[in-house]
Amino acid sequence: MVIVLTPQATDKDIEELTDNLKARGFGVHISRGVERTIVGCIGVLDSEKAALSEQLRALPYVDQVIIISKPYKLVGRPFRPEGTVIDVRGVKIGGEQLTIMAGPCTIESEEQLMQTARFVKQMGAHILRGGAYKPSTSPYSFHGMGEEGLKLLAQAREETGLPIVTEVMDTRDVELVAQYADILQVGTRNMTNFSLLKEIGNTRVPVLLKRGWASLIEEWMQAAEYIASRGNYNIILCERGIRTFETYTRNTFDINAIPVVKELSHLPIIADPSHGTGKASLVPAIAAAAIAAGADGIIVEVHPQPERALKDGPQSLRFEAFEEMMQKLRRLAPAVGRSL
Amino acid sequence: MVIVLTPQATDKDIEELTDNLKARGFGVHISRGVERTIVGCIGVLDSEKAALSEQLRALPYVDQVIIISKPYKLVGRPFRPEGTVIDVRGVKIGGEQLTIMAGPCTIESEEQLMQTARFVKQMGAHILRGGAYKPSTSPYSFHGMGEEGLKLLAQAREETGLPIVTEVMDTRDVELVAQYADILQVGTRNMTNFSLLKEIGNTRVPVLLKRGWASLIEEWMQAAEYIASRGNYNIILCERGIRTFETYTRNTFDINAIPVVKELSHLPIIADPSHGTGKASLVPAIAAAAIAAGADGIIVEVHPQPERALKDGPQSLRFEAFEEMMQKLRRLAPAVGRSL
Amino acid sequence: MVIVLTPQATDKDIEELTDNLKARGFGVHISRGVERTIVGCIGVLDSEKAALSEQLRALPYVDQVIIISKPYKLVGRPFRPEGTVIDVRGVKIGGEQLTIMAGPCTIESEEQLMQTARFVKQMGAHILRGGAYKPSTSPYSFHGMGEEGLKLLAQAREETGLPIVTEVMDTRDVELVAQYADILQVGTRNMTNFSLLKEIGNTRVPVLLKRGWASLIEEWMQAAEYIASRGNYNIILCERGIRTFETYTRNTFDINAIPVVKELSHLPIIADPSHGTGKASLVPAIAAAAIAAGADGIIVEVHPQPERALKDGPQSLRFEAFEEMMQKLRRLAPAVGRSL
Amino acid sequence: MVIVLTPQATDKDIEELTDNLKARGFGVHISRGVERTIVGCIGVLDSEKAALSEQLRALPYVDQVIIISKPYKLVGRPFRPEGTVIDVRGVKIGGEQLTIMAGPCTIESEEQLMQTARFVKQMGAHILRGGAYKPSTSPYSFHGMGEEGLKLLAQAREETGLPIVTEVMDTRDVELVAQYADILQVGTRNMTNFSLLKEIGNTRVPVLLKRGWASLIEEWMQAAEYIASRGNYNIILCERGIRTFETYTRNTFDINAIPVVKELSHLPIIADPSHGTGKASLVPAIAAAAIAAGADGIIVEVHPQPERALKDGPQSLRFEAFEEMMQKLRRLAPAVGRSL
Repeated sequence: MVIVLTPQATDKDIEELTDNLKARGFGVHISRGVERTIVGCIGVLDSEKAALSEQLRALPYVDQVIIISKPYKLVGRPFRPEGTVIDVRGVKIGGEQLTIMAGPCTIESEEQLMQTARFVKQMGAHILRGGAYKPSTSPYSFHGMGEEGLKLLAQAREETGLPIVTEVMDTRDVELVAQYADILQVGTRNMTNFSLLKEIGNTRVPVLLKRGWASLIEEWMQAAEYIASRGNYNIILCERGIRTFETYTRNTFDINAIPVVKELSHLPIIADPSHGTGKASLVPAIAAAAIAAGADGIIVEVHPQPERALKDGPQSLRFEAFEEMMQKLRRLAPAVGRSL
Repeated sequence: MVIVLTPQATDKDIEELTDNLKARGFGVHISRGVERTIVGCIGVLDSEKAALSEQLRALPYVDQVIIISKPYKLVGRPFRPEGTVIDVRGVKIGGEQLTIMAGPCTIESEEQLMQTARFVKQMGAHILRGGAYKPSTSPYSFHGMGEEGLKLLAQAREETGLPIVTEVMDTRDVELVAQYADILQVGTRNMTNFSLLKEIGNTRVPVLLKRGWASLIEEWMQAAEYIASRGNYNIILCERGIRTFETYTRNTFDINAIPVVKELSHLPIIADPSHGTGKASLVPAIAAAAIAAGADGIIVEVHPQPERALKDGPQSLRFEAFEEMMQKLRRLAPAVGRSL
Repeated sequence: MVIVLTPQATDKDIEELTDNLKARGFGVHISRGVERTIVGCIGVLDSEKAALSEQLRALPYVDQVIIISKPYKLVGRPFRPEGTVIDVRGVKIGGEQLTIMAGPCTIESEEQLMQTARFVKQMGAHILRGGAYKPSTSPYSFHGMGEEGLKLLAQAREETGLPIVTEVMDTRDVELVAQYADILQVGTRNMTNFSLLKEIGNTRVPVLLKRGWASLIEEWMQAAEYIASRGNYNIILCERGIRTFETYTRNTFDINAIPVVKELSHLPIIADPSHGTGKASLVPAIAAAAIAAGADGIIVEVHPQPERALKDGPQSLRFEAFEEMMQKLRRLAPAVGRSL
Repeated sequence: MVIVLTPQATDKDIEELTDNLKARGFGVHISRGVERTIVGCIGVLDSEKAALSEQLRALPYVDQVIIISKPYKLVGRPFRPEGTVIDVRGVKIGGEQLTIMAGPCTIESEEQLMQTARFVKQMGAHILRGGAYKPSTSPYSFHGMGEEGLKLLAQAREETGLPIVTEVMDTRDVELVAQYADILQVGTRNMTNFSLLKEIGNTRVPVLLKRGWASLIEEWMQAAEYIASRGNYNIILCERGIRTFETYTRNTFDINAIPVVKELSHLPIIADPSHGTGKASLVPAIAAAAIAAGADGIIVEVHPQPERALKDGPQSLRFEAFEEMMQKLRRLAPAVGRSL
């Protein structure tokens, strides 16, 4: 921990600070520059650093406090340098093979779901997505079929063999959703719902953790750490675009986050080009880009008739568009050292 | 609802679209420009608009759909043009008198809370703030004293007579927290936790609804609409800064949001300059600015010894700084037509 | 042009507006909804639309004005649907073959430039980059070698045969730089320096137009339109990352912009992963992603000893890293239908 | 300067680094923590720091380099702790009295300018604003009357006695505009046009330096340093709103920047609520907020008929709105210790 004092700090201030730090049992190094004095503080536990930093910054003679170490451990790359592969009913996520998750934004009916599940299975998808509980900006919109939707997902799994990923939004629903889902999804709006993260951390069900639309990569890592710190290490990260000043696209897909996460963490990362762009015409290009940048797979919205979808129609791929994208990705995979 | 077609749209497309809309019972106006055709669609219920808009945008010959009306009604200014005043144990929020909410970020001990409560009461504050359940980016930080903290708040209320505002983060805690709190706070990280909004909407306890740090003003209004649509109209909005590219301050306090909300909504709005800046030295200036811009009050963090605070020390006002700020605001209030 | 009136607009207001528009020679369509009246205005010239829109929005009974058509024509895709290929001394930019531009951020010495030029040529680069005039946030930093740098570039071109791209920052330097450069670069800080855009538009030298770090894609298209409207159609767009709240990377590379620009414009687009990330370790992944998303090439910073570079060392590729990246891109190109 | 090494740094790396730094004549302090070694480097000149930092960051065993001192000196508060007051033909900017600058966005005609100048003078404005050279996103928009506009400004000054502020966009125009203007304005789009900053720095004419819409406060200070480093210290800073994700307002007025700049710099700062909001109805509230936060004045757009303005009509105040705002500010000024 590096403490930068203000130019006005007196010798008495420095003495007070170092006495204080030594009294807490920390080692202290003082480095006096021309204008400033810098104090190195050694031996602070990682779990103490955030609080200590804030306390020190509240002192009038302290200008900045710099924490060197990362605020997460369990999900950090050094914890497991070889990387994590998560096995979901035999589908390996994070290994050499790319994982394709596909399905409708929202489960609307048995026919819609089954038709889509069969098609994406036939095209080579590995996981079926579909929302039974849907977050919605407006209180008046459709909020999903609830448990009935979960039952339809289970039926689709039975028929196609595809494991299922679906969102959970309420701490009270975790147990129920976990009875059906193979992967629990934490949506972008709930990445900082810490009660939900803890509750999911208490299960051992794999989690798809979407990045908050205005969350730093480091905050996203800490959200994952919440889950891991409860004992659930089966975490799949998902970059789905961030909010910026650009409005032509629904979000700005943060392609940089893919290789950054690969450097910082051992967890698998997949890309959501549907939310990352908001436009079906852009989805195949961004899916390919994410794979080329090192993503372990993609999750995309597919609908038999986007113009009748209850949600996210403009960003949902029609069947033929999904088929074309899969062909494109099959050509791409070996060129970047992956299989599909 | 205005539907803008692509330049490539054919007469057949236009016919298909208008037949479709008429079959649903809507009125249709066609306006053919030089390059584009624009279709006006009349008679769509507000609650149908979002879904219909997405469906239409999924059509290949539709370029844009423009929804004219606001996506919220109950919290909109036209619903109650004279404005809303909320009575919290005799404190009127939203009226001519400004409301000052003050107290520690987090309840740390009986002594810390009582000392602060007495001081802010003496200086003229109207509401006591204090966190018993604290969201924290790191799983390893202090997360609050829980129910014990709520009991200390109740004790402080008994002694000082100040009503209390405190945060609730989990749907399962709403009932418990509501037994103690006079105002339930929804934090910035939970503005899009729709399950929580609904649960609070089911109570009749006044709510302090903070703006999400990356939420549009319109999305904030819709979060309020969630609460109101369940029957709880006692909503106080709170601007607390948004996330931008500027890093010198912790957040960018969106001063524009104050007069904008006054135009759009009948609800009271208060300002949180502590989170809006992240630096105690900037708090008084931004508190004054918010009042001058039309805010109905402020909520600020005060701590007897910020350098020992467990959270938010750098942005917490020392007692003497809070006293000075109150004097400043007392001079300011009458100049902007308010009392304090 | 669609004019949305406020709910308070009276019949008299509507009459005043339509009389006004008809008097200017425009066609008018009125569509009365339940709450609002919408007025379609037909026949406005594109060049008049922005001004007329602002005037109408200043009327108290006008809520919004929606301009349907794009604010650019010459650089729009419909103007030349087959796409533009720019020939720079035999190097075709925008065709089936990818273009690699590489070289040092800043020209520091004859040795540094020549050594780099020879190496990137040997590895298969097509264009040599290098800054003689450098924008710098600090007035005390190195601002480039000026004309001496241009002469070194010319010397490198003579030896290697690589055409050269270099930045021009001042309207007064356009003539001089154009005597040396094969491509004039407009940097991100000057994308809204309209005097510079006009001056370059008056030449016929190819231009590399970087996107402003906080410019909308639509504003970038208009900056290109400035150049084209003076008769210079030889414009190569360059996405180099935008400024967002994320600080782990220097910029957020906007990968969405690649397929968006391909939809909106006929101009070639290349990617700058050096500035788009700010870290050499991330450059190869983002270069590959950009190619997979449809970019026509890349521009990267290469330096023999990044730890001695006068600028941009942390994002400059060492020789061996550039070589590896080129191998990676050679495997990738055919998988996305391009050659290299 | 603090250099943080990676956890992988070896003793040999540390030795190489310290030898390198000592060979350049710097003092070195080594602080070995549990995981990391931190190296303090003493004696680096401010003007060398940026370049040295980048070089060090390019070393594989260096993780971060932290520069403690500010990257500007002449415009920093410590350089002139008492603050700067700039005298423009007798109008004191930065003192106890607030400065009101008002006038049309763009000079459109003699009548429009004279009528506005007389009115704002009568209402108590101190400086007349008006654009003769106008930046415009579209190449097809009106770009100002040029020198003819400057002559009209001079005529308005002669009649009303108001000093004039007007924008200059091109290095080649500085000399001409300086013959007419009492204050040269650098617009938001040119804050990083360093050639222009240098050219203006060579004059001794007062400058109004607008913040770039996506520029950090620290970058803005460095832009001011460009001007000061050439000898022109007559710099007035102007906060005019930044670009964020919020689109309801044209920009997000960064109210925090007002007290931040007062801490960091001795220069006067004024607020531009017209561009900071983009809506006339919001201008008076934000003008008052800026004054309450400590701004030394405001600059606002006023037009006799906003619905006929060639630019910025929606954000221009009508005469009666300007009059009301002035009354409001007159009540406010003494309550915040200023006069008007």
